[in-house]
Amino acid sequence: MEGTLAEQVLAGREQQAEAQLRERLQDTHALDGGEVYLIGAGPGDPDLMTFKAARLLQSADVVLYDRLVSPAIVDMARRDAQRIYVGKKRADHAFAQTDINQLLLELAQQGKRVVRLKGGDPFIFGRGGEEIELLAKHRIPFQVVPGITAANGAACYAGIPLTHRDYAQSVRFVAGYLKGNKVEHDWSTFQSTTETLVFYMGLMGLPVICEQLQAHGRSPDTPIALVERGTLLEQRVLLGTLATMVDVVERERPTAPTLIIVGDVVRLHEDLAWFGEA
Amino acid sequence: MEGTLAEQVLAGREQQAEAQLRERLQDTHALDGGEVYLIGAGPGDPDLMTFKAARLLQSADVVLYDRLVSPAIVDMARRDAQRIYVGKKRADHAFAQTDINQLLLELAQQGKRVVRLKGGDPFIFGRGGEEIELLAKHRIPFQVVPGITAANGAACYAGIPLTHRDYAQSVRFVAGYLKGNKVEHDWSTFQSTTETLVFYMGLMGLPVICEQLQAHGRSPDTPIALVERGTLLEQRVLLGTLATMVDVVERERPTAPTLIIVGDVVRLHEDLAWFGEA
Repeated sequence: MEGTLAEQVLAGREQQAEAQLRERLQDTHALDGGEVYLIGAGPGDPDLMTFKAARLLQSADVVLYDRLVSPAIVDMARRDAQRIYVGKKRADHAFAQTDINQLLLELAQQGKRVVRLKGGDPFIFGRGGEEIELLAKHRIPFQVVPGITAANGAACYAGIPLTHRDYAQSVRFVAGYLKGNKVEHDWSTFQSTTETLVFYMGLMGLPVICEQLQAHGRSPDTPIALVERGTLLEQRVLLGTLATMVDVVERERPTAPTLIIVGDVVRLHEDLAWFGEA
Repeated sequence: MEGTLAEQVLAGREQQAEAQLRERLQDTHALDGGEVYLIGAGPGDPDLMTFKAARLLQSADVVLYDRLVSPAIVDMARRDAQRIYVGKKRADHAFAQTDINQLLLELAQQGKRVVRLKGGDPFIFGRGGEEIELLAKHRIPFQVVPGITAANGAACYAGIPLTHRDYAQSVRFVAGYLKGNKVEHDWSTFQSTTETLVFYMGLMGLPVICEQLQAHGRSPDTPIALVERGTLLEQRVLLGTLATMVDVVERERPTAPTLIIVGDVVRLHEDLAWFGEA
């Protein structure tokens, strides 16, 4: 008999005790306390975080965060929490996605309480699904906390209702980035004039988006808004049409993050704009 | 000369004073201090409110709220704030939409700080646009605060990523209710297998939705999840396919509010479910 853990330690057999403890921990991950919270930090304005996001963030031992998360939000973490920047830019990845997945797993297996903080909502263009798939496979406990996605944040702060009884009975969120020189979608399904389209990450792809929508039957006069740095104090709303927007952007030179809203609801901005207005 | 307001009141000419005051107020609405905050209360779990929503709610003199707003959220208002229920059911409206618009205007014109509290996000199937159009026309100051919309809340709590590198490059939010016996959409634009569809208020319309999607080329095996009371402790997720879901619902008899998610991402629920799991 090996004796109880306490007896072994008292008898000076720490090594044996540790081995025994490790064995137990392998059986029941719950014991080691490792856990991951995948949290949506919202669209930018720190005031648009949820209570739940803030509460879980403040319980974290380690925080992995993206480029699009406001510093004011990362600062809500405990002062002694470890902060790891895993932001990705297009060409120049700080971390590959598989590295992030693996890092989350390893930190949790070390018994850490890990927060994975993402801009917007983790399940809207956040690749959050991939990050928890590996955790689920290894039976690491996790939670997913929704955040205000960029479309909702920018639309409310720009005074552009995404749906509206008179103009739009549905709204579609679309990845707007280029692959090669294309934005890959079945453009023939985008012709409905009673649907609002929202393109995420669409600044570089804007010329293709405007061209394809017109090629598939949307009027050149269809209004577009490009919201730069939505919900932040520096928010700027650029207005145009499918025909004119590329020129507007060339003149005004907005920078990412931007959100592009296409459809008749954009006309309401003129009357309903309120944020940053005099 | 009429004299100052105080002189008139002292001289017993209250009526004249009041008329003069009204005239001034009409000139500068800012003077009377009336203001409206159109606030998204989120999908149900009170913990999913934003800081901004809670802060503005606590500053309100009057709160107008919907059926879908949790009592725990309405209770965050000041104890002495007036609470007005303006919930709408389908057949039996407590208030017509135009009445709500008018009430918001009148309360603000009385100088009240008014919060209009809506379930989810005010600009996603919330008719929030209509409510502030009348305010804008009368130059009443207002703010719009985004909330977690039902799709984001239910998806995160059900472990169903709405977009996913392997399965869905876009997501569409669609009004799923019946008009007459139809759900009015251009169904021919719904055939993409790499798009997630989310139907709001689609419980009654489910048979039509399943039938139309199959009639327009979606496979009968396409997976569907119906999330009942998403993000609340009583959340229930029913799974099926376009071919079987009507039977599942007949057997399980879920009640509103429900959210319907259609697409290959639904298959991830089996591995990624975490909320309310043992």
